[in-house]
Amino acid sequence: NRKKTISVTELVSGILAGNITALSRAITLIESTNPSHSKKANDIISKCLPHANTSTRIGITGVPGVGKSTFIEAFGIHLTSLQKKVAVLAVDPSSSLSQGSILGDKTRMEDLVKNDNAFIRPSPSGNSLGGVARKTRETIILCEAAGFDTIIIETVGVGQSETAVHGMVDFFLLLKLAGAGDELQGIKRGIIEMADAIVINKADGENIKAAKTAKVEFNRALHLYPAKASEWSPKVSLCSALKREGISEIWNMIEDYTKVTTANHYFETNRNNQNKFWLLQTIEDRLKSNFYNAPKIKLELPKQILLVEAGKTTPFAAAEYLLSL
Amino acid sequence: NRKKTISVTELVSGILAGNITALSRAITLIESTNPSHSKKANDIISKCLPHANTSTRIGITGVPGVGKSTFIEAFGIHLTSLQKKVAVLAVDPSSSLSQGSILGDKTRMEDLVKNDNAFIRPSPSGNSLGGVARKTRETIILCEAAGFDTIIIETVGVGQSETAVHGMVDFFLLLKLAGAGDELQGIKRGIIEMADAIVINKADGENIKAAKTAKVEFNRALHLYPAKASEWSPKVSLCSALKREGISEIWNMIEDYTKVTTANHYFETNRNNQNKFWLLQTIEDRLKSNFYNAPKIKLELPKQILLVEAGKTTPFAAAEYLLSL
Repeated sequence: NRKKTISVTELVSGILAGNITALSRAITLIESTNPSHSKKANDIISKCLPHANTSTRIGITGVPGVGKSTFIEAFGIHLTSLQKKVAVLAVDPSSSLSQGSILGDKTRMEDLVKNDNAFIRPSPSGNSLGGVARKTRETIILCEAAGFDTIIIETVGVGQSETAVHGMVDFFLLLKLAGAGDELQGIKRGIIEMADAIVINKADGENIKAAKTAKVEFNRALHLYPAKASEWSPKVSLCSALKREGISEIWNMIEDYTKVTTANHYFETNRNNQNKFWLLQTIEDRLKSNFYNAPKIKLELPKQILLVEAGKTTPFAAAEYLLSL
Repeated sequence: NRKKTISVTELVSGILAGNITALSRAITLIESTNPSHSKKANDIISKCLPHANTSTRIGITGVPGVGKSTFIEAFGIHLTSLQKKVAVLAVDPSSSLSQGSILGDKTRMEDLVKNDNAFIRPSPSGNSLGGVARKTRETIILCEAAGFDTIIIETVGVGQSETAVHGMVDFFLLLKLAGAGDELQGIKRGIIEMADAIVINKADGENIKAAKTAKVEFNRALHLYPAKASEWSPKVSLCSALKREGISEIWNMIEDYTKVTTANHYFETNRNNQNKFWLLQTIEDRLKSNFYNAPKIKLELPKQILLVEAGKTTPFAAAEYLLSL
């Protein structure tokens, strides 16, 4: 089988030359659960690492129906028109091969898919957010080594995936729609707090008035939050992804953000903090999974929980006992 | 030394008889760092456990200056007038013997201190929130076994201590002051989200108008949050702890809460979930401290962080390496 004989060296030189086939194949190794693939993937990553860390990484979130695909298509097309190379990745722990995932249906980004300066890759599958996030972070490294200078990472507004994406990007964009009046209802506050920009999509035709009202309300809401360590004040913008209006303004804003945060060194500090976070997170996830997956603990933990519930032991005594096994 | 010869059995029967000296001495064993004391403490706790779980546990938080001591004194006096037995504990990880702690200065609760049906114990000292929280949770068990039917746990608005206290009480009360207009500025949103009641203190004299305005604003803010699993809608109340006005209404509200959550079984479910949380939390804290305090890791972790920052390794590869040591 010819495919399997391609060496790490060949894949790496392919990636560094900007070869999309090599890039895709290396990402498949990252996503594989086969231990020999993981070894190969780790080799590739460490050879790509000196060529990484070169892009602007942008996270985009928003609930289903907000028009994420249409927005990313319009935004990506605009970036390629500025001679940028754009990679679009996704983090969706709920996706699997059978369900299909966000970005899985590339027909939703028809124009961008055909563009030679764009690379679109659906979310890696997996039920653990930690695993999916790790694969995506490693994929970012390969994309950067392949010359992509703008990385867009899409996520759905589900569970903790926004927090994971926020922890791997430079700029975090929340996509919203203008609703019927009470814009603040039902928003996860933590997400607004993470946002560097709130973009109200579908601000066209009859929606324009509602969108402008929503802009005022979001601006007011943003003012209730304490100042960010980045010294960047989050902005609210309107756009119509469908009509491709307001898109260049959003990219200009991200360039402003990059200027501000490069000047005050937050950009670099933030990336270092993100790296440290992922290092510690990986260690702690593994310590926990090693412990809880040990056969003795699997057997004894439920028994101890029952004893605690029955008031026969304290949580602390039960913990001591389990740790002593 | 007579003090040291008191046996576990004697202490336990003292506690069960409601003897405050026995209770205090047993709490001192819980707070001790001496391993032989810890063994004794664990014996006492397990013998008290069948007599515990009988109180209403109320968490009270608020920034310094809000009048927590005055409020707790007024509230405690009211409860003892209803023939209740009230224990007042505190969680303050920043306190130490030298600094003094919240509740340390009992002169701030002069009337309550003299009351036979009240027991006041300052925060255990310690720099780790986990350690302080554990000692306080164990102290709750002893207080309940000693016949205290209402446990008040005070905390300052610092770091994660509110979350710890919220995780050990049935009802969580946020004490506030009416400010000059923009009440929502600077509030930690997570704390509002945890609150079962917001009580605006010092609602007397010239402050009444501002307090009423604040009440409207907090009610509006509370409506922005999703409904609670307890099915309880958080309430906003006014009081003047100094003038002892509005205090009985707060206790009536807590009784309403207990009725609602007992009927829908949230009260019990919440306690079970809290126990499970502390069990897992204790395990995970210990797994982490065992790992990070190992001499090899102490030596190698900073080196790996530097390599990650220099782009010579990834956070994931560094984690694998450290886990393999």
